[in-house]
Amino acid sequence: MTDKPLRNIRIVVEYDGTRYLGWQTQSDGATIQGELTRAVTAITGQRPHIQAAGRTDAGVHALAQVANFHVHSVIPAERFAPALNANLPDDITVHASAEVDTAFNARHGSLSKLYRYRVYNAKEPAALEVTRAWHVRFPLDIAAMREGALHLLGETDFESFRSAQCDAEHARREMLAIAITATERPPIGRYVDIVFHANAFCRHMCRILAGTLTEVGLGRRRADDIAAIRDARDRSRAGITAPAAGLTLLQIEYPSPA
Amino acid sequence: MTDKPLRNIRIVVEYDGTRYLGWQTQSDGATIQGELTRAVTAITGQRPHIQAAGRTDAGVHALAQVANFHVHSVIPAERFAPALNANLPDDITVHASAEVDTAFNARHGSLSKLYRYRVYNAKEPAALEVTRAWHVRFPLDIAAMREGALHLLGETDFESFRSAQCDAEHARREMLAIAITATERPPIGRYVDIVFHANAFCRHMCRILAGTLTEVGLGRRRADDIAAIRDARDRSRAGITAPAAGLTLLQIEYPSPA
Repeated sequence: MTDKPLRNIRIVVEYDGTRYLGWQTQSDGATIQGELTRAVTAITGQRPHIQAAGRTDAGVHALAQVANFHVHSVIPAERFAPALNANLPDDITVHASAEVDTAFNARHGSLSKLYRYRVYNAKEPAALEVTRAWHVRFPLDIAAMREGALHLLGETDFESFRSAQCDAEHARREMLAIAITATERPPIGRYVDIVFHANAFCRHMCRILAGTLTEVGLGRRRADDIAAIRDARDRSRAGITAPAAGLTLLQIEYPSPA
Repeated sequence: MTDKPLRNIRIVVEYDGTRYLGWQTQSDGATIQGELTRAVTAITGQRPHIQAAGRTDAGVHALAQVANFHVHSVIPAERFAPALNANLPDDITVHASAEVDTAFNARHGSLSKLYRYRVYNAKEPAALEVTRAWHVRFPLDIAAMREGALHLLGETDFESFRSAQCDAEHARREMLAIAITATERPPIGRYVDIVFHANAFCRHMCRILAGTLTEVGLGRRRADDIAAIRDARDRSRAGITAPAAGLTLLQIEYPSPA
């Protein structure tokens, strides 16, 4: 084994989070990291630590999670994607694999991340959206939500918007953009998508922000309340943690190679 | 019960067909019709026959199936939608309900139907599309597929493109349009959607047409072969029946009220 070169493999992973306890391996159930580790072991005989850019919660989806791991292997790097897919359940797939510099770390090397929180806004729920969006029955005021979101841009202390279980030292993050769009969703209703783009996120941050902005959209809070909640640095002042099913990790940004 | 008026209720139904044996009640498993009948019984105490516009196969989805049933009831017509949703599994939902003329029949009254067959076209599969699209690995030639589809427009005998189990007397149908579109699907790959608009469909017709057109897109058949297959009136000449998961009933058209 040690006569094979040690290589750093970067993979782009999509998953439907519905059946999983989230990214990180846990003793009490299936995780994305656990399934991927098992698949890597099946094809290489090794059991590397797989590092992901975003450690998503139970029920959260990903279109393009980025992860990396070090293995001694002579398998061509681009062959990891099909070989892993042959050893993964259907609801986890690898879009692409490539060899990267040994120093590349999917988590610590990322510049920024984009998450989409999706609300399905209609009187009655939609069967095909149940595991993919949060059904909100009453019409949302998009303009008010956008106005509220303006108080969350730039260098911000998100202490009010993170879970008590968050293990980060502090909650200062840079929010680069929040885009809120309403799109028709046939035959009735619409999607209200909130895309969060930040350098990094605290635990449950997207979901608490989505829950609070949705309360603004419902008229239960005013747009300006967001500034007061932010300044209070107190989780109990913010809104509910929106359901995990509505959240999807869209994209991870890295510095472009020099 | 008989002192309550007999009313004809029209519903618009969405479903994720993955878990079901299709629309029609069968002795050996769950069906959409069966679940809806159970829900109507739960709220009215009656067990009407529920008629649907399109009797979808096992695994096929619907965004806006239309169905109707006659019940003796004083429940306001628009209340059927939320009341049924409260009695249905998550993967079947009713968007809307309304009272219609006693003579309205969702199946026999329809003018035309639109179905979408969705291919996910990329080297590797996509986890969030597994139950919603057919993964085709090699790049499809969209122009060739469109050229092939031209041989299927207008009054056509679809004998070559229907299941041997189809119980319709003949296979002459009017194909009003076939629209084939390619749309980027991040992070990698694309959707190739084939929308079929016809006055009516035979059993497995959309899936056999999608399978055959996909073979044209893969270069395994020429676009002109579609005309020869059509004229042969022989199922064995056409391509495979594409998987059910890629098919969604989009819309049913009815004459507009005078």
